[in-house]
Amino acid sequence: MKVNGKHFRTIWLKEEQEETVQIIDQRNLPHEFIIEDLNSIEETAKAIKEMHVRGAPLIGATAGFGMYLAALQGIDLETAGKQLIATRPTAIDLELAVKKQLKATKKSETKEEKIEITLNTAKNIADESAEQCRMIGEHGVKIIKEISKEKNSTVNILTHCNAGWLACVDYGTATSPIYKAFDEGIDVHVWVDETRPRNQGARLTAWELLQQEVPHTIIVDNLGGHLMQKGLVDLCIVGTDRTTYTGDVANKIGTYLKALAAKDNGIPFYVALPSNTIDWNLREGNEIPIEERNPDEVKFIQGLNEEKIKKVLLSPEESPAKNFAFDITPRRLISGLITERGICEANEKGIKKLFSEKDIEEID
Amino acid sequence: MKVNGKHFRTIWLKEEQEETVQIIDQRNLPHEFIIEDLNSIEETAKAIKEMHVRGAPLIGATAGFGMYLAALQGIDLETAGKQLIATRPTAIDLELAVKKQLKATKKSETKEEKIEITLNTAKNIADESAEQCRMIGEHGVKIIKEISKEKNSTVNILTHCNAGWLACVDYGTATSPIYKAFDEGIDVHVWVDETRPRNQGARLTAWELLQQEVPHTIIVDNLGGHLMQKGLVDLCIVGTDRTTYTGDVANKIGTYLKALAAKDNGIPFYVALPSNTIDWNLREGNEIPIEERNPDEVKFIQGLNEEKIKKVLLSPEESPAKNFAFDITPRRLISGLITERGICEANEKGIKKLFSEKDIEEID
Repeated sequence: MKVNGKHFRTIWLKEEQEETVQIIDQRNLPHEFIIEDLNSIEETAKAIKEMHVRGAPLIGATAGFGMYLAALQGIDLETAGKQLIATRPTAIDLELAVKKQLKATKKSETKEEKIEITLNTAKNIADESAEQCRMIGEHGVKIIKEISKEKNSTVNILTHCNAGWLACVDYGTATSPIYKAFDEGIDVHVWVDETRPRNQGARLTAWELLQQEVPHTIIVDNLGGHLMQKGLVDLCIVGTDRTTYTGDVANKIGTYLKALAAKDNGIPFYVALPSNTIDWNLREGNEIPIEERNPDEVKFIQGLNEEKIKKVLLSPEESPAKNFAFDITPRRLISGLITERGICEANEKGIKKLFSEKDIEEID
Repeated sequence: MKVNGKHFRTIWLKEEQEETVQIIDQRNLPHEFIIEDLNSIEETAKAIKEMHVRGAPLIGATAGFGMYLAALQGIDLETAGKQLIATRPTAIDLELAVKKQLKATKKSETKEEKIEITLNTAKNIADESAEQCRMIGEHGVKIIKEISKEKNSTVNILTHCNAGWLACVDYGTATSPIYKAFDEGIDVHVWVDETRPRNQGARLTAWELLQQEVPHTIIVDNLGGHLMQKGLVDLCIVGTDRTTYTGDVANKIGTYLKALAAKDNGIPFYVALPSNTIDWNLREGNEIPIEERNPDEVKFIQGLNEEKIKKVLLSPEESPAKNFAFDITPRRLISGLITERGICEANEKGIKKLFSEKDIEEID
């Protein structure tokens, strides 16, 4: 996607210096656009844990390149994989990328061989992710087109968190159908949930949409229900960090509340996902591990003050806070899943129709 | 209630200087505790509009004293009343207080007479509000007691915004049963929704609870649904800015989402209100005027940085934002209303059982 008119992915090899991986350090966006070098497994693990990069598909792609950096360092890949997996528990892409690298290098004996294979595998993971996201756009745009045709005026789409280009390698998941619709000249407008506590919506999704010139409006997470009651939302599209094979969805905290409101107001609620985020071993959403993060993310927030990024305390210093990062949206609240292979119902039957047993075995 | 161990109301006459009304300027809480003098109708209107004071009952009490200040200034009270009513559209208490003052002074001719009557009426409005809130506690505590008896461990209560002492003259509405339960030795813990965009929960409710030493935890508005799914919420109590006589409730934006989640998880959802907030002329919640505030309240936030209060920008400068202050929770989602006369069902029959026709006429 575009940043100041120039095309970028979210992760790539440094030009003429292929031992270095480059990412966008997303922590200071939208105020500062910083490109960061990753030269080791340690730097990669830190970048994931401290959320320089975030979003399930991008975490997966970063882990892929992290294994390549570990191979360059001559570190045991099993150990490196464990270090990466320990950084964040909810996104399944992380584990998948590590497993893919371990499987690919199982029979390689020399350091050189491992470097070559992990590099190719990392590139493949990233390319595959970009292609999956592109296809999500191809399929998802049909839903927007249909509403546009029926309504004959602006299609208002609500999204939560950042399931955008910045969460992936390119295109985004939830945003991919929106970008596609916009490119095709459909009149769309996006309600951007700010997404407390880390404000990925207000910081990242708004910035992304601004860069691609897609009309949007930032709202507090509390507002969506009211907008739906007033008929100001035609469609919700969100991403997911992990999906059970029965269609339950773990996504950014607060997603469940928006799904409830959509249901209550008869508004379609779709989840966009590359099939990587489907956990073929989990039946029920409440079995998905939910990450608990530092309560200071609730009590403090950073923003721009007199051209500098500053962190401010929002509450009494002495009051405790609690900070779970994800919640579970049960399949009964989801209108459908938009995958790289097409749109399906959010249930076991729907998912298995698109992803046959062969695929399940392959992934396991 | 207590501030640093000393008893305070939220509005009072200055000691030995009864031409001045004093309030707590709530904008810089919890970081700074500032007492502000009000000496004119202009200062009063500004204090309401710019939210030095907020919360339906306190807005009403402040308007009562504002009319007294207008009388002291020798300003036409009709004009003063209009000026006050124009400040904020959703809370009905404001209009009621003005009407009460106009009715009381209808036959008074001299300035002295008007001053005396408006002073007494203002004091009565404040005293009545405090007493109503005290009674809400007396009735509401029974719900908490029952859960405590059944559960035999900590009762976890979720509240949204600040329907506390700071929103009223004393005790609070939603908090009154909680304070009463705490004083009676019942083991309670409060989940405090931070309540974006103005963070009345994280700033004010947390501070209030801290001052009264009630155990509590601050959470982002997105978290409540997850906590309910996990069985970590036993009861929700919120306030209201205006209630139809059929039981629909206008309260701080986001209330509707919590009511949906409570319903979905079988958790009791109560609204605490002095009967002043009942609009006897409105049948349907969607007829309640919803205030739209400055979008900068979404894009900027203030907090403490290096001992100073600073405002930071949270989003791209160029992205627009939308900022509605209230939403409507339909009566079908409400377990009951806790009023100064007792607890009733959130419907016309329940409300009219507690508040007979005679009262309705009186208020009209």
